[in-house]
Amino acid sequence: MLNGEKKIARPLRWGMIGGGRLSQVGYKHRTGALRDHTAFQLLAGAFDIDAERGKDFGVNICMDESRCYPDYKTMFAAEAKREDGIEVVSIATPNGTHYEITKGALEAGLHVICEKPLFFTSEEGEEIKALAEQKGKIVGVTYGFSGNQMLLQMRAMIEQGKIGEIRVVELQYTHGFNANDQADKTSDAQKWRVDPKVAGPSFVLGDLSTHTYYMSQLIMPHMKIKKLLCDRQSFVGSRAPLEDNAFVMMHYENGAVGRLWTSSINAGCMDGHRIRIVGSKGSLEWWDNKGGELKFEVQGEPSQTFIRAMPYLDESCNADERLGALHVEGLSDAWANIYLKFAIAIDAKNRNDEETLKNLVYPDINAGIDGIRWIENCVRSADNGAVWVEIENKNPQLV
Amino acid sequence: MLNGEKKIARPLRWGMIGGGRLSQVGYKHRTGALRDHTAFQLLAGAFDIDAERGKDFGVNICMDESRCYPDYKTMFAAEAKREDGIEVVSIATPNGTHYEITKGALEAGLHVICEKPLFFTSEEGEEIKALAEQKGKIVGVTYGFSGNQMLLQMRAMIEQGKIGEIRVVELQYTHGFNANDQADKTSDAQKWRVDPKVAGPSFVLGDLSTHTYYMSQLIMPHMKIKKLLCDRQSFVGSRAPLEDNAFVMMHYENGAVGRLWTSSINAGCMDGHRIRIVGSKGSLEWWDNKGGELKFEVQGEPSQTFIRAMPYLDESCNADERLGALHVEGLSDAWANIYLKFAIAIDAKNRNDEETLKNLVYPDINAGIDGIRWIENCVRSADNGAVWVEIENKNPQLV
Amino acid sequence: MLNGEKKIARPLRWGMIGGGRLSQVGYKHRTGALRDHTAFQLLAGAFDIDAERGKDFGVNICMDESRCYPDYKTMFAAEAKREDGIEVVSIATPNGTHYEITKGALEAGLHVICEKPLFFTSEEGEEIKALAEQKGKIVGVTYGFSGNQMLLQMRAMIEQGKIGEIRVVELQYTHGFNANDQADKTSDAQKWRVDPKVAGPSFVLGDLSTHTYYMSQLIMPHMKIKKLLCDRQSFVGSRAPLEDNAFVMMHYENGAVGRLWTSSINAGCMDGHRIRIVGSKGSLEWWDNKGGELKFEVQGEPSQTFIRAMPYLDESCNADERLGALHVEGLSDAWANIYLKFAIAIDAKNRNDEETLKNLVYPDINAGIDGIRWIENCVRSADNGAVWVEIENKNPQLV
Amino acid sequence: MLNGEKKIARPLRWGMIGGGRLSQVGYKHRTGALRDHTAFQLLAGAFDIDAERGKDFGVNICMDESRCYPDYKTMFAAEAKREDGIEVVSIATPNGTHYEITKGALEAGLHVICEKPLFFTSEEGEEIKALAEQKGKIVGVTYGFSGNQMLLQMRAMIEQGKIGEIRVVELQYTHGFNANDQADKTSDAQKWRVDPKVAGPSFVLGDLSTHTYYMSQLIMPHMKIKKLLCDRQSFVGSRAPLEDNAFVMMHYENGAVGRLWTSSINAGCMDGHRIRIVGSKGSLEWWDNKGGELKFEVQGEPSQTFIRAMPYLDESCNADERLGALHVEGLSDAWANIYLKFAIAIDAKNRNDEETLKNLVYPDINAGIDGIRWIENCVRSADNGAVWVEIENKNPQLV
Repeated sequence: MLNGEKKIARPLRWGMIGGGRLSQVGYKHRTGALRDHTAFQLLAGAFDIDAERGKDFGVNICMDESRCYPDYKTMFAAEAKREDGIEVVSIATPNGTHYEITKGALEAGLHVICEKPLFFTSEEGEEIKALAEQKGKIVGVTYGFSGNQMLLQMRAMIEQGKIGEIRVVELQYTHGFNANDQADKTSDAQKWRVDPKVAGPSFVLGDLSTHTYYMSQLIMPHMKIKKLLCDRQSFVGSRAPLEDNAFVMMHYENGAVGRLWTSSINAGCMDGHRIRIVGSKGSLEWWDNKGGELKFEVQGEPSQTFIRAMPYLDESCNADERLGALHVEGLSDAWANIYLKFAIAIDAKNRNDEETLKNLVYPDINAGIDGIRWIENCVRSADNGAVWVEIENKNPQLV
Repeated sequence: MLNGEKKIARPLRWGMIGGGRLSQVGYKHRTGALRDHTAFQLLAGAFDIDAERGKDFGVNICMDESRCYPDYKTMFAAEAKREDGIEVVSIATPNGTHYEITKGALEAGLHVICEKPLFFTSEEGEEIKALAEQKGKIVGVTYGFSGNQMLLQMRAMIEQGKIGEIRVVELQYTHGFNANDQADKTSDAQKWRVDPKVAGPSFVLGDLSTHTYYMSQLIMPHMKIKKLLCDRQSFVGSRAPLEDNAFVMMHYENGAVGRLWTSSINAGCMDGHRIRIVGSKGSLEWWDNKGGELKFEVQGEPSQTFIRAMPYLDESCNADERLGALHVEGLSDAWANIYLKFAIAIDAKNRNDEETLKNLVYPDINAGIDGIRWIENCVRSADNGAVWVEIENKNPQLV
Repeated sequence: MLNGEKKIARPLRWGMIGGGRLSQVGYKHRTGALRDHTAFQLLAGAFDIDAERGKDFGVNICMDESRCYPDYKTMFAAEAKREDGIEVVSIATPNGTHYEITKGALEAGLHVICEKPLFFTSEEGEEIKALAEQKGKIVGVTYGFSGNQMLLQMRAMIEQGKIGEIRVVELQYTHGFNANDQADKTSDAQKWRVDPKVAGPSFVLGDLSTHTYYMSQLIMPHMKIKKLLCDRQSFVGSRAPLEDNAFVMMHYENGAVGRLWTSSINAGCMDGHRIRIVGSKGSLEWWDNKGGELKFEVQGEPSQTFIRAMPYLDESCNADERLGALHVEGLSDAWANIYLKFAIAIDAKNRNDEETLKNLVYPDINAGIDGIRWIENCVRSADNGAVWVEIENKNPQLV
Repeated sequence: MLNGEKKIARPLRWGMIGGGRLSQVGYKHRTGALRDHTAFQLLAGAFDIDAERGKDFGVNICMDESRCYPDYKTMFAAEAKREDGIEVVSIATPNGTHYEITKGALEAGLHVICEKPLFFTSEEGEEIKALAEQKGKIVGVTYGFSGNQMLLQMRAMIEQGKIGEIRVVELQYTHGFNANDQADKTSDAQKWRVDPKVAGPSFVLGDLSTHTYYMSQLIMPHMKIKKLLCDRQSFVGSRAPLEDNAFVMMHYENGAVGRLWTSSINAGCMDGHRIRIVGSKGSLEWWDNKGGELKFEVQGEPSQTFIRAMPYLDESCNADERLGALHVEGLSDAWANIYLKFAIAIDAKNRNDEETLKNLVYPDINAGIDGIRWIENCVRSADNGAVWVEIENKNPQLV
């Protein structure tokens, strides 16, 4: 159980790019990173494409005005000159800038924590991975929802064989906030998401379901997709070629099958991620809108509900517990878990502690690349008429 | 609101084929047909393939022993000679016998009520439809779950435009009772379901999801499928080529898309049919394990729950109400609704009352054929590698 | 599992008093009694205070017109003269007539099934009990909700010690249909319920919560109330002295405590009975709006949900199963269970089969009297300022 | 919507008493206070009765070792000498020390934030209130759950008359963690809770239900209790005279009635606070285990669910929003809301800004005294045999 006591020798010196006043996600980064004051301290920022607004924002969150920079390049240059310059930076900007900024940060000698989807192409991902390795730096990906420790409970139970051999994987992450195109026209946070130049090759696949896909891999690390089929639609026509709804079907190497539904036009839906894993003996089901509960259903037995923070949970799950039973945790706590693991990874990397790195479960560069590749395959399938595509040699072919 | 008062001049003289002591479904037929004693009276039966057991059963439900027949042919012959012989028969036997018995019944001058899936092929369906028309008889199909009147509420709201243009159709009917193959070996009621000679070309598609598919057509009668793709699996290998799990994807003519999941290996799942219809303005969602509630979610407004028997419901829904608010209805009541409509249809047919027939919403021969055709297309898709098949000219082609 | 096969040698000849076209409850009696045609046959009725309407109704449910009587006295007299006269009668009239009609029926040599609350006073109850014993007849009480077999599951688990020693009993049966007084003025079915001359000393205590109270006694037959306190209100003033809301607190002899809330002004509440029994080891919770599920919560373990019709349930529960897993049962099925037990009791009484009677669990005259006495004590407490009253010597005293 | 930007000119210099390594609640204080780094900075602490452990803990959360004090008196003295000494202190110690420490803190010129229940007697409360007024300081009470902004939505809707005149108040806060007495013997955090010398005159009334009681007053500030009755039990006998279960009944001045159930022996219950307010037109219901949803049930209309962060909510509710729709908030966020209001109150007090103080809704000294008085009345009722006690002249009399 976590209570804020330090897990690394000293807090890391941290900067942010993007995530300012108009950002939906910037506050989540700060809430996660600064939960305990023992993992990160926020020292610098280039918070906004509007430099003045960015500086005003930085001052308003009580930062040193002189370290609120007009842009990330200025920040990298200035901070590099300081004794107490930042050593890690988070990138909370639109998708289209992730690759360039990450590359710049690594070259400036910084660890990187980046929003998802990581980049546009898996080639970019491999290039950055090589660069990070060369520089001895960590690249983490903020799959924030994945910090809910009940996912680790699922992972442990599956590994322990509680549900038998996996047969069916059912994933969903949908909402209805874009049932019409009003926000496409009025909201800066939405506009770029439907612009392929900024968003990349997908809208909801990358914006929503890469989270859920990563969560599925987190809880079933041994399950590899063999082939998939994606059918995507633009119900609001102006979004084409980007999709506002998509269905994905998957075949796994062990013979299991899977489905995923992602949508921003599921009108009225307000319930976030849904994950159900069906095995030969039983099933596990978790919905993040009641994320402290996990259903465990063994065929022929009364169904069970596992509840967060209880002693009967796996220790890997309770290791990330913060508030205790009866006290609801939410997305703030999940982000705190993720960021704490980023800190531990960075600290281990700095100390060449490969043992810690090997055992630490967190969304790293490989998870980021895997997410990009999954989107690439989905798009390739969809753009060829929703046909099956094989996932092999990291170079998927049409069937 | 129904209270058992008669809807037709006198109860119809009714017989049953199958549905005896070992049947899972026979009791549902009797419960539905005999709910009010004003629609049907059970006078004859050939309840069991074991003639003695069938007679014993008939006696045990207080029937006249002399009208408990060893087989349906004997029953048809004997009843035809009686002044008070049966005029309608229900068929609750394994799938492989439906066609032959239905044909025999129509030729014996009887109306027919038959279990789903109706027959093995749509050709058989068309042939029987022609025969029924020639004979002036009704053929009804016992999609029993579809008698829940909240489905008529959905139908009314969709027709009234409450959710806007339909975009996504999400259907599910799964359970886990066949997660292993024990029942395949020990239960007579299960054995034939995985034998293609008796079950026909599918297991769960026909056994489970034809119900859900029909319910979707009931609530969205204007929605036509343009093409579909079905991916089916036999997780218990001995069931091959019949599937114990299947995913279907559908494209509708208006541009909407749909999905269906049916399974008998969804270990631990106990919640029956799930239907969600997403429109451009809002969504409707109904699960039959809490079938007296209907969620109506308009994007950007508080979500609403419509509750059975309340005055704010559509009159088409409340017309089938029996128990009143706060009083839970279940599958017994749904079957009663279906059977009452069969009685009204038969009575109208007998009186050549085409006006009544035209306006009556119930699972008729066309619904039965539509269900067969849907299975045929699913199987054709699945057996060709889970590819898209066009639904056109009632003669689907591979794309 | 029940499938409609007979449990007694022949169906009982049955008549009804009240329960005609305008009745809310008459249809439930018929649905319950006639579910299987093997327990009761409806042969006579005095369905309505309006004799013409009553006869018209009888004809409309396909009864013999000559046995549709203008009033119960005429019915008793005429039926007594027939060889095939009724042998049991159900009373579905307003409360104020129950005592007189029951007495008349017993004196006419009939078994009686009567609506709750049985009579106005426990003295009337004791008198009728003595009369029934003298006549060798059964008096059953239609606590219809109590027919849900999951209550027997609770009874079995409590008896088996699964939750340990009982500590807290939490009961609720509330709705909001009388939040205003419109129905008091316009609905015949509601008018009499707020008239003490017809309804007796209580409104919601007798109309609603006697059901829940009986259900609590059904599942915990060993638990005796030592003292109670009732606080009742008439939020719609015209209902005074009858209450439209009441709270009851109870102390049981074993040291357990209980609460009950009953109301018809709980605006918007649509969820029926709620029962939670807390023991030293675990708790059981059941709500009748999802009456096929039972929560079993052992402190410190994952919570469990028991689901109707599953093999792991107690055999006493599954003995009343009718539809099987995945098939929702409702109030119709509960009434069928109750009426079948009435038939078994009557048949046993007729045969002097005391062994069967001793073991049969159903709402008998003692349950009816217990309910009256509970109301008496509630009213006495409430009318003395919501003070504690001791329940002893069947003659409760103010503390 | 809050994003961490400052609401006061500079963060307040803050210290803590108690809340160290073994505390269940200390981490919640820090998480709430330090959420945004713009309201409080943690500079000093006397975290533990074990001075060494307290210092070690302080160092481990990256504090200046020299400001980790062995006890609160030393801290008050040392900090008073510093230019940058603390100006506000939080008290997270067992109940029995609250009065003395609060008094000492006010006399040392500090604002105070204190755990509930505030003190043992309302007299102590009045004395401290007078002292705080004299010193010009704030005393806040950490009713942490009350920071969930959906409670402000309830407050707004009730004030706007959405549910009509309030009739019934139904409150519950129960769990089962003390179903046996194991923790009484082994857990330091539990031991003192059942020791009247440290816990005060109640166990669960003060430990649990003062939260719920305060929340009810927050959402219905105009509702005054006229009389109440409390029935308390010690199911684990060693806890007597302190209760582990209690029922409270309340009469409000407007004629409404209320109930509250609090328990730590509700075996298996894991769902926290439940609040239902029934009015003449409709009801509001909120459970904190799904605290982002609020049910609004108008009699005769479809029931509605209001969901956190949606634009249709009252602006007083959305003013405390932090994460946005689809992103679950939890207890961390509620504590952050409470602590931010403490900071605003302290800042306003420091600036003599009475206008701000008058309009700010937060748990102040009056809320704390009200809670003590409510417990006093409950205990007085219970100890006199669970009788009604009048609440008047702040000096309750037995009826």
